[in-house]
Amino acid sequence: MPRTLIVHAHPRPAQSVATRGLLLALSELPDVAVRPLYDRYPDFDIDVAAEQQALREADLIIWLSPVYWYSVPGLLKHWFDTVLTHGWAYGHAHAAQGTGPATQALAGKTAWWVASAGGLPATYGPAGEHGRPFADYTYAIEQTARFCGMHWAPPFVLHGGHRLDAAARAEAGHELRRQAQALLASLERRT
Amino acid sequence: MPRTLIVHAHPRPAQSVATRGLLLALSELPDVAVRPLYDRYPDFDIDVAAEQQALREADLIIWLSPVYWYSVPGLLKHWFDTVLTHGWAYGHAHAAQGTGPATQALAGKTAWWVASAGGLPATYGPAGEHGRPFADYTYAIEQTARFCGMHWAPPFVLHGGHRLDAAARAEAGHELRRQAQALLASLERRT
Repeated sequence: MPRTLIVHAHPRPAQSVATRGLLLALSELPDVAVRPLYDRYPDFDIDVAAEQQALREADLIIWLSPVYWYSVPGLLKHWFDTVLTHGWAYGHAHAAQGTGPATQALAGKTAWWVASAGGLPATYGPAGEHGRPFADYTYAIEQTARFCGMHWAPPFVLHGGHRLDAAARAEAGHELRRQAQALLASLERRT
Repeated sequence: MPRTLIVHAHPRPAQSVATRGLLLALSELPDVAVRPLYDRYPDFDIDVAAEQQALREADLIIWLSPVYWYSVPGLLKHWFDTVLTHGWAYGHAHAAQGTGPATQALAGKTAWWVASAGGLPATYGPAGEHGRPFADYTYAIEQTARFCGMHWAPPFVLHGGHRLDAAARAEAGHELRRQAQALLASLERRT
């Protein structure tokens, strides 16, 4: 049975409506662990070894966050910078020398960005205030995963979640769980 | 005379070869101020008012950083998240209510990403280990500037700077300063 790790990055989880709904939907998956980054690391002092150990144990890694400035929040970016290290996530064991066995601790795992964006889809595009299709802003995150040898599942993006009523949010949660279950089933078939 | 603000984001400035060379080249510009983010905010506790005041006083805002995971380092991303606030950099003065006068404190200024990337240009592209042209990874940063009403100058990217010898690094510094001077001259003509 594939194991899921949710790396949850919302600065004010209690004030989050959209992201919290997505987290609740994902929490019902079997064998899921959640790491709330802003709770654990309010001073951004990330326990790299603990994060790497949690990643090792997971098959599906979900980055769950609001979209801030067309990307992940600062702490999740800092998590990329500090946890996905040279000599562990990529490169060679003796990173500085570029020698030793090749290491790619996350190879074969699947990464998935589950995101909550304030702007509706129509605002993403040449005519909208966000200028480009949302997909254009996902390249850096996708390539971060791919460079570490991970599979990349197309992001799940909830647009305008804070404007939805409870029924529409519940529907989004169902759709997210459905996609997560399909993803987990495909991982199970792969192994 | 236009004023330049360099927002410098390198986690270990003393160990930086490439970025330090770019900083030195830019430091020779007239009327330039430097804010070394990792020195000021080792605990990521950004003084938002101070940062906003520095931005107000500048015409050209340079984000100087290494490229980490196809984007800016975590602290600079956190700076975007916390300094470019709703009700100041965009939106309305009473942000929560969406009322009051429209505010865009940075409108008309010019933003420029001066970046040092480890990978050579050939590694950016479908056949390279970084998958896409480097330009594809700049969209989020560009749109961050544009959403705040800023002009966007095409990024200056030094590729493989740590592998360059001193003469080649000096040449890169000259080219950077030349581009900076041309940019400043265009700002002067505009005002």
